[in-house]
Amino acid sequence: MTELSPAAVEFLKSSGASSPPQVEHRLALLRSWKIPQGSKVLEIGCGQGDCTLLLADLVGENGHVTAIDPASLDYGAPMTLGEAQAQLKASPLGNRITFKQATVEEFCQSNDETYDCAVFARCLWYLSSPDMILSMLRSLQGRVRRVLIAEFLLDIQGDSAVLPHMLAVISLADINIGQPSDPWTGNDNVQSICSPKMICEMGRQAGWELEMESTIQAAEGLEDGRWEVGHVLSEKYAARVESLTPEPRRVYAKMLLDAVKQSTAAQPLATVKALPTWFSSWKPSS
Amino acid sequence: MTELSPAAVEFLKSSGASSPPQVEHRLALLRSWKIPQGSKVLEIGCGQGDCTLLLADLVGENGHVTAIDPASLDYGAPMTLGEAQAQLKASPLGNRITFKQATVEEFCQSNDETYDCAVFARCLWYLSSPDMILSMLRSLQGRVRRVLIAEFLLDIQGDSAVLPHMLAVISLADINIGQPSDPWTGNDNVQSICSPKMICEMGRQAGWELEMESTIQAAEGLEDGRWEVGHVLSEKYAARVESLTPEPRRVYAKMLLDAVKQSTAAQPLATVKALPTWFSSWKPSS
Repeated sequence: MTELSPAAVEFLKSSGASSPPQVEHRLALLRSWKIPQGSKVLEIGCGQGDCTLLLADLVGENGHVTAIDPASLDYGAPMTLGEAQAQLKASPLGNRITFKQATVEEFCQSNDETYDCAVFARCLWYLSSPDMILSMLRSLQGRVRRVLIAEFLLDIQGDSAVLPHMLAVISLADINIGQPSDPWTGNDNVQSICSPKMICEMGRQAGWELEMESTIQAAEGLEDGRWEVGHVLSEKYAARVESLTPEPRRVYAKMLLDAVKQSTAAQPLATVKALPTWFSSWKPSS
Repeated sequence: MTELSPAAVEFLKSSGASSPPQVEHRLALLRSWKIPQGSKVLEIGCGQGDCTLLLADLVGENGHVTAIDPASLDYGAPMTLGEAQAQLKASPLGNRITFKQATVEEFCQSNDETYDCAVFARCLWYLSSPDMILSMLRSLQGRVRRVLIAEFLLDIQGDSAVLPHMLAVISLADINIGQPSDPWTGNDNVQSICSPKMICEMGRQAGWELEMESTIQAAEGLEDGRWEVGHVLSEKYAARVESLTPEPRRVYAKMLLDAVKQSTAAQPLATVKALPTWFSSWKPSS
């Protein structure tokens, strides 16, 4: 297993951007794709650049990562997207990274560059609708040799400590079906959920062929489950559920929220585990 | 533990109405309420009378069960509600039973009878909306001394063999939020889901005070989980999901259906277990 470079280790220590379980989990995922050194990578939905740093390290000094995200550079706390990206650019690995605020479609229309691979590292549930995946995958045709997609999988794999995370994201996907009166719709981390099956259908429709798919368990201590469950158990979230209309949607959302609560009765928040991650590799259909 | 009377055993054998796990599970539930012999019971949502027979046996020859259900007597297969109820009336326990096709509200308005207890034995998820529970519980004020409520609980209690049942009923509750174009809306066994918390809120609002609540696991072999999962995995159900509108609701429903499928990949249908049952006892608030 490749070790992280001293420069990457130093940046992770000094920036405090990612917790050790986050780094461990992302590394396990990225390494499983076996991206060769020297690769030109297009990273989709890079956010604060947590995967970008690791990708830049993996591709080595002759590789490059172009990392795009349509989110506002003001988004995020305690550090904004813009601040986090600037910090990364100023690091020793900064010259291997180009950040760009753009959707995949905008980015592909704005230039003719080609890449060895496009990476979607658990960014799809941030989309307001999974249908956007089809258009993104179509835009990448002729521009990248491989598409690498990873997202959480709605499966507890026999471990009931994962159930609260599963129920929390089902609740989030439901509440984000949308309510004009809910100012939070569209601002949750998880806004929609797609299954591997749905991603695979869109991949094929967009002219890609599945080369490989597999699943890895969440790294020990990965916080994503606790974060989403904590968010759903907040008073603000309960108020959003109570204000849903029409009545049957409110009742359904309340039932889901009670199921999340019930699941954490036996599984205190601190011990909630994150869902496993499904990952896949795609080449253009012949 | 009280044994079933020879008459009840004989009826169960000859009618084939309920499987042994169904009888065992219902008996465990009904016995936990300790309904005294000689009681006058009002059973709500009796359906084909599966619990009615057991209640009639438990109350003994000096007790009586008035069993009501608003469903059409033509409903049900292979035996209709009317046929099943007639068979039960013709049995040696038939003189302890009165069937009536009515809602709780209609029934309470049509007479002044009082009862020792009202029993809701897992009939609430059949309601098109849990809000109907409030009105039913209000109607029972002054007419029954105790209210006994039991319903499935959305909790796997650490046993992942229960997860497919949980996900299937979440999917059913979602699809039954309603779609005018879906001729099946309102015909599923599970149409809405309410949590104990929601039932307790309505119980209090309707002037009842919780005396006791507890949970029992499903009897070994109880088929309800397999039935609901099998229903959700049918081609007909997949077609209903595909025809849902608007698009975000279709995508959400498809994701839930994929989660049910994923859960049965590790847990073949024949080994799916049923959710636990929550049960409770209520007296009028003082």
